[in-house]
Amino acid sequence: MPYSAPVADYQFLFDHVIGFERLRETEKFAEASADVTSAILQEAGKMANEVLAPLNRVGDEQPAKLENGVVRTSPGFAEGYRAIAEGGWIGMVADPEYGGLGLPFSFQNAVNEMIGGACLSLQLNPLMTQGQIEALEAHASDEIKALYLPKLISGEWCGTMNLTEPQAGSDVGALKTKAEPNGDGTYAITGQKIYISWADNDFTENVCHLVLARLPDGKPSTKGISLFMVPRNIPDAEGTPGVANSLKVVSLEHKMGLHGSPTAVMQYDGATGWLVGEPHGGMEAMFTMMNNARVGVGGQGIAVAEAAYQHALAYAQERKQGRAPEGDSILGHADVRRMLGQMKADVFAARAIAAACAFAIDMEHATGDEAWEARAGLLTPIAKAFGTDIGNEVAALGIQVHGGMGFIEETGAAQFARDVRVTTIYEGTNGIQSMDLVARKMMDGGEAAYALIDDMEAYAEGCKADFPELAEPVFTAAETLRETTEWLVQEDMNDRFAGAVPYLRLFARVLGGYYHLCAAAAAGADSTRARLARIYIQRLLPEHIGLAEHVRLGADDLYAMRDEDWAA
Amino acid sequence: MPYSAPVADYQFLFDHVIGFERLRETEKFAEASADVTSAILQEAGKMANEVLAPLNRVGDEQPAKLENGVVRTSPGFAEGYRAIAEGGWIGMVADPEYGGLGLPFSFQNAVNEMIGGACLSLQLNPLMTQGQIEALEAHASDEIKALYLPKLISGEWCGTMNLTEPQAGSDVGALKTKAEPNGDGTYAITGQKIYISWADNDFTENVCHLVLARLPDGKPSTKGISLFMVPRNIPDAEGTPGVANSLKVVSLEHKMGLHGSPTAVMQYDGATGWLVGEPHGGMEAMFTMMNNARVGVGGQGIAVAEAAYQHALAYAQERKQGRAPEGDSILGHADVRRMLGQMKADVFAARAIAAACAFAIDMEHATGDEAWEARAGLLTPIAKAFGTDIGNEVAALGIQVHGGMGFIEETGAAQFARDVRVTTIYEGTNGIQSMDLVARKMMDGGEAAYALIDDMEAYAEGCKADFPELAEPVFTAAETLRETTEWLVQEDMNDRFAGAVPYLRLFARVLGGYYHLCAAAAAGADSTRARLARIYIQRLLPEHIGLAEHVRLGADDLYAMRDEDWAA
Repeated sequence: MPYSAPVADYQFLFDHVIGFERLRETEKFAEASADVTSAILQEAGKMANEVLAPLNRVGDEQPAKLENGVVRTSPGFAEGYRAIAEGGWIGMVADPEYGGLGLPFSFQNAVNEMIGGACLSLQLNPLMTQGQIEALEAHASDEIKALYLPKLISGEWCGTMNLTEPQAGSDVGALKTKAEPNGDGTYAITGQKIYISWADNDFTENVCHLVLARLPDGKPSTKGISLFMVPRNIPDAEGTPGVANSLKVVSLEHKMGLHGSPTAVMQYDGATGWLVGEPHGGMEAMFTMMNNARVGVGGQGIAVAEAAYQHALAYAQERKQGRAPEGDSILGHADVRRMLGQMKADVFAARAIAAACAFAIDMEHATGDEAWEARAGLLTPIAKAFGTDIGNEVAALGIQVHGGMGFIEETGAAQFARDVRVTTIYEGTNGIQSMDLVARKMMDGGEAAYALIDDMEAYAEGCKADFPELAEPVFTAAETLRETTEWLVQEDMNDRFAGAVPYLRLFARVLGGYYHLCAAAAAGADSTRARLARIYIQRLLPEHIGLAEHVRLGADDLYAMRDEDWAA
Repeated sequence: MPYSAPVADYQFLFDHVIGFERLRETEKFAEASADVTSAILQEAGKMANEVLAPLNRVGDEQPAKLENGVVRTSPGFAEGYRAIAEGGWIGMVADPEYGGLGLPFSFQNAVNEMIGGACLSLQLNPLMTQGQIEALEAHASDEIKALYLPKLISGEWCGTMNLTEPQAGSDVGALKTKAEPNGDGTYAITGQKIYISWADNDFTENVCHLVLARLPDGKPSTKGISLFMVPRNIPDAEGTPGVANSLKVVSLEHKMGLHGSPTAVMQYDGATGWLVGEPHGGMEAMFTMMNNARVGVGGQGIAVAEAAYQHALAYAQERKQGRAPEGDSILGHADVRRMLGQMKADVFAARAIAAACAFAIDMEHATGDEAWEARAGLLTPIAKAFGTDIGNEVAALGIQVHGGMGFIEETGAAQFARDVRVTTIYEGTNGIQSMDLVARKMMDGGEAAYALIDDMEAYAEGCKADFPELAEPVFTAAETLRETTEWLVQEDMNDRFAGAVPYLRLFARVLGGYYHLCAAAAAGADSTRARLARIYIQRLLPEHIGLAEHVRLGADDLYAMRDEDWAA
């Protein structure tokens, strides 16, 4: 079943939902015209459909392998990677000074979803590089920038993130990897890192590892961590990779999915590294890299959801079974329509949230406005967690639509569910995202949240006359979100944490209703958008009521459970 | 991580929640004393923990294989199967006349969950045989009973169900397999069947296939289908398997999970079969087999949920990460407690529903009372669909508790999610279960549903004084369920179908609250049961509000979507 990148959906979001024209009014992105937007979406969609989508099953069936210390990638992945690199898609948002295109992050967000929907395991490679480019632009010395950025942007080299260690996952501050000064300005990096996505490959000239490690005088917390560039092969001043560094891929993990992406245990034995950013400033630099990577991972969830939806729809349109009230395929059955309607409506909701988040990031960069920065910060964990939750839910429904065929690997429906499973975990689990939302992103007392709720309510209010059936429930839900937020911000931190995941879901559910309303209003009452909005707002939005109740419980009942209760 | 069968939970359900003593007052099950109950639960739990649990990973890592037409099962499965057979667990409920123990189905339901929690892929084998025994007892001739039942009950032979064909899944009536009279009372069975669980093995002396096929004069619908016993090897009158029948395993499926269970494509080429039941009465006979198998599959979901919960709990108790408000493992974090609390509370809810369903089946058999029959019929689809949905949700949360480790296969958390995935599909998808609930099981105008709601409300009313915080929400939720049911039964069938899945979920959510309330009331306010009930009733039960809204929409919005809308 061929994948078809959601070009039209992004075009619609840009033109009618997220107010993208405001970005074109800024000096920084004045060139992101309608023509440019359209050309980029079309071109990326074409590559995703024609070049990358055929690789998806190959990666699953013929995983990357470690042979005598060398990673052999899945057949065709080298060519797929080259298409992405040569299209200029890796450095879309990167600084033109180093070869980037300087385009809005909104475009990268859209294109990444298309690439991920076509072949998620391969897409993870440039996604990591994009994060590294951003971290280097923000924190690296001019020498490192000049040496590494052009190669990363062109895709000749690729980048990885090395945070996790066996004892240091969500608690990054507990890491043990050491960095000892060599006396020549470089550092000797020693330690073991795990879960390193695309730690090596057989198609780029070099692999650049950004590694978190502790300097000898680093405190035993996140405040004592520094960031280092540790290339696989040490480049000379002209950028020719030379002698092999003292690092190696120890093993590749046997994972539930995403088999085309090699996930490694990495060993650093006094490997030569260069400091990126300030000593002990590693976490800040890493967060630069992680923040947009979080939006990127949210996009991975949406990407798989879109692909799984298309796959299930094609099956439902073809499969004949039983007498349906309409048509002669199972798409005529009410319950199959319910599943596909939910899938499609949720994909749109998650995509709109991600697009709005990317847009806020662009507006922040273009205007320097703190309100846009706050909105971007608020939306980032929501985009990540909701996008990936929806990815899992839609993939699960995709299997269900297939019936027995869904459980058989040849069908491909199961792969979506297996691949997308990791997205709720990496780049900060969705629990961590939710805690970020209710803690750090609420340090403003809820101001950013209220501003967004104000926008939603004002918009819904304006739609009540023409779309009462859609606008009223969205307005009511936004009010519930406001009241829940008012409750939340005055609670102790651990009481917030006990309801953090349902709060994030509540926020996303309401936002999804708002964007569906925007879409319906823009397209008119007799439109696909309006019909889909009705399914979302009537069937899915009501979930918010139970979620709001859940949020407001605090942590007491969870801590009332005694140690012995859990195993009883 | 060792599995520990939920012996104490079943003991508690029997003693304090489902009113099992009423069964002991019947003549049929007078011997199911407290001592017998306890001995059976203990003994089965011991076998599950010690003999079967060690096989679970083996089955996943070393799947059953087809070698030169012969199925080679996973290492250790033959021994595991023998332990199940020799323990008498296959024929627990079977007629003592043929070697069965004549025990209540409630016991089999409990024991099957324990076996399934230890090793789901192996458990599926005796589960199929149990269904076959029941179908033969109800429908087969005395000759077939005498020849097959003792062997099936002892486990020397095992049984399969052959319903599905490529073009006939949920729509069984579309099958093409033919049965031609041979003139000697036997029939020549010709056709292909797919998704045949445990179609063959290397540890039973014979494999007995119950095959649905159409006689020459059979109508082209479910009313023209007959059931046949088609043994792999044709037994002589003494029950010694002889000449090989004209059937073969064509291939084994490559599945997402349940690798230890061989799932086959079967080819019948004029294989010799014996009619079971009346000509054209195959569907009725098959439904006998399927109804209890549905409860059995619900139990599979609960089984995996229990195992996944235990696995995640052990990890959470051991894993140290970050500073938690309590203790020094991640179990001290509010969000981890929320996940584990939800898992444990949902496992109990699903198990209580399944136990209540099994009990209703027993009461139906012991008393012949139509009200018990109606209750069993009502609870069966709920037990199946909710048990398996919870299986999937709890397994997904189990992965999430593990963080990155959850995505790595070695951990074992992923296997639970992969294995349990099929349970929402086979024995009738959960969509089919939901349609059964709102259609066939509501042909009484909702009488059976109202009777159960009456019970819940009366009980909650009685608890309001002592447990207001738990009883009030359960009462309110039951009222919502009543109102939703009143709406449902007066709607057209397709409007019911459009809300069938959320209606079943709503029903299960409320029932879960009721059984948690029963448990809390029985154990007292200061008990594990009460603390867990509080988590369920406050955090999970509120989901019912959104579900009730969803149910009442009817099908209009789903059919408003035009053909072109789906791909837009």
